[in-house]
Amino acid sequence: MSYCTATYRLHDPKADFHKKAESIAVGLTVGSWTELPQAKRTAMQKHLGQVLHVDVHEDLSDADRYADITIAYPDVNFSRDIPALLVTVFGKISMDGRIKLIKLGFSESFQSAFPGPKFGIEGIRQQLDVHNRPLLMSIFKSVIGLNLDELREQFTLQALGGVDLIKDDEILFENELTPIEKRVEICARAAEEASKETGKKLLYATNLTGRTSDLKQQALRAIDAGANALLFNVLSYGYDVLHELSSDPEITVPIAAHPALAGAMYPSPHYGISASVLLGQLMRLAGADLVLFPSPYGSVTMPRDENLAIRDELISSDLSIKTSMPVPSAGIHPGLVPVILQDFGMDVVVNAGGGIHGHPMGTAAGGRAFLQAIDAATHNIPLSDYAHSFPELQTALNIWGGK
Amino acid sequence: MSYCTATYRLHDPKADFHKKAESIAVGLTVGSWTELPQAKRTAMQKHLGQVLHVDVHEDLSDADRYADITIAYPDVNFSRDIPALLVTVFGKISMDGRIKLIKLGFSESFQSAFPGPKFGIEGIRQQLDVHNRPLLMSIFKSVIGLNLDELREQFTLQALGGVDLIKDDEILFENELTPIEKRVEICARAAEEASKETGKKLLYATNLTGRTSDLKQQALRAIDAGANALLFNVLSYGYDVLHELSSDPEITVPIAAHPALAGAMYPSPHYGISASVLLGQLMRLAGADLVLFPSPYGSVTMPRDENLAIRDELISSDLSIKTSMPVPSAGIHPGLVPVILQDFGMDVVVNAGGGIHGHPMGTAAGGRAFLQAIDAATHNIPLSDYAHSFPELQTALNIWGGK
Repeated sequence: MSYCTATYRLHDPKADFHKKAESIAVGLTVGSWTELPQAKRTAMQKHLGQVLHVDVHEDLSDADRYADITIAYPDVNFSRDIPALLVTVFGKISMDGRIKLIKLGFSESFQSAFPGPKFGIEGIRQQLDVHNRPLLMSIFKSVIGLNLDELREQFTLQALGGVDLIKDDEILFENELTPIEKRVEICARAAEEASKETGKKLLYATNLTGRTSDLKQQALRAIDAGANALLFNVLSYGYDVLHELSSDPEITVPIAAHPALAGAMYPSPHYGISASVLLGQLMRLAGADLVLFPSPYGSVTMPRDENLAIRDELISSDLSIKTSMPVPSAGIHPGLVPVILQDFGMDVVVNAGGGIHGHPMGTAAGGRAFLQAIDAATHNIPLSDYAHSFPELQTALNIWGGK
Repeated sequence: MSYCTATYRLHDPKADFHKKAESIAVGLTVGSWTELPQAKRTAMQKHLGQVLHVDVHEDLSDADRYADITIAYPDVNFSRDIPALLVTVFGKISMDGRIKLIKLGFSESFQSAFPGPKFGIEGIRQQLDVHNRPLLMSIFKSVIGLNLDELREQFTLQALGGVDLIKDDEILFENELTPIEKRVEICARAAEEASKETGKKLLYATNLTGRTSDLKQQALRAIDAGANALLFNVLSYGYDVLHELSSDPEITVPIAAHPALAGAMYPSPHYGISASVLLGQLMRLAGADLVLFPSPYGSVTMPRDENLAIRDELISSDLSIKTSMPVPSAGIHPGLVPVILQDFGMDVVVNAGGGIHGHPMGTAAGGRAFLQAIDAATHNIPLSDYAHSFPELQTALNIWGGK
């Protein structure tokens, strides 16, 4: 028998959590059990959910009393796609009191329908030919209302700073000023120009938007126009759409998953789905090569342990598919680079917007300051020492702090 | 200028909510404003978000202090699809502290991309030729593991009870025992047989599942096989998929939207998206003919005011598209019918599972008991009076209560 598992955290001052676990295991699979005649039970056994663990935390106030419950769901009950799994394990029960989905377990059989990230951490490093340091990503700033010339100008400044990746703003949709094919063309050309100065490769993740059934064709047009990466607002379309795009042999570029809307589901302690499931397990399973999520460092923050839980899922060896590159985002400045390395190790994208564009010496200098910080941190040199030789880094430390 | 609007509820003990509103209006549109030179501001004005209302509720404890903030987002910033709207108004901001999206406003221009429900309340009534009473829907019980014969048997019992609609269980996916085309064929035939006895029409909403890009073809195959309605787990696929299916001229049957997974987003007072937005505004805009949601009556409950807020959005005359039929579900028994009518009026589907299958005289009697209750309630006759002549209703009142 092959099962996928789901672990839930239930808050309740008085509930019999063992009984509740049984009712979930039965209710979300065969519907009823004790009243079934024996012959029927034998036929239904292979469809019946199983309670694997009930871990009750009693020694708390009534308001905080909770249990973590793990249920095994027979694979035979659902098709091998994420909508079927999520509807099975959290469809109805999501509406039944204080319950949060905190972990999934994918059977081998279920996993076999998911080729996973096409590039993953190693593939992205190969594309960029950068192997011994964290990567650096830069985010366009205030792109709504810009025309192609203004966009190119901003792109060039970021590229000249030596960043490894540039991503569209996630709120840049198909529009008359900078339609995707034109945008990709001018940015690809600008990247080529900049590369002559920096000697570096660059991935530009253009935002894939519009109607669901047009996404693939739009992606192919963007790739034809020179796109070498895509940005995708996964949660507004559903994981299955990412799964379809990432496993499509014609989509030959890495996909960066944006966490837009995730905050509608993960922050409550009592309801929803944990960030490590939403932005960790499911993004990787669905095939995201890079996954953005709110960093624990900035103003839009996520607690550090939740961040590390996402990271753990993106790189876990529990899955046989490729790993996904973690991209903690928001509030990042050069002074944070040593902390980011400490938290995430080498396999991380340092992703900055204001920390690059807001550099007093300009956007290109902002990129260089980050590369200097990365260089220092990967060689265990205190930033403040390294900054003596690099005015860009020194300036960044002066205004944003860090040592 | 044409705008869509979003209203948020923000909880914060100390925040300057007016300042916060300005920062949302600027941050989610042009990105920055005060630092822009005048010429740039003129060019950007049409892209700038506007604060419409800030309604601060001060006279509360710190923990409860909140404000309702309404922002207008220029349509020119996003394409006319739900993913673009949601990412614009709640993409990044969903992850920024205690903020809940509680209401949307759709401009005429935005609405013009949405034909809305193909049938709506009137269309469904016409299909069933039932005009002067609430409709009655019956839910399959424990269908996982059933073979076609067992499924037909259960279908027939429900149909013989005289229900107007029968829906698949939302956790019934494509499977070897009851594949969709076979399931539809045998149920369509069973419906025809039953109709000879009941003289009534019947819609059977079969569950549309599987990979996103296959859904349309699967729907067409089901329709070819005789399906006269579809059930769809909208939130596991995204609203845009419903929008595409509902607006497709080849999909010629009503679509019932299931709320599976909605509980990951609406129950927290501090985070997520209100039920009236998720299951009211967006389901209707995306074209659901019927919308299921947890009733305020059963064990899986939603507060009554949230229920009525969903109803209001489904039938509101603010939108020029057709109305969607409200289907409050879970915990429904015949004794509740007068309350349901009081809360929802005539245009509601009385939707029952256990309240039909659990009837001591059997499933068909369970359906008849509901129709008797509906008949009594629409004629303002107390159920307990009416039950004197109807043993099915009397039995139901005896075990579940109601008067």
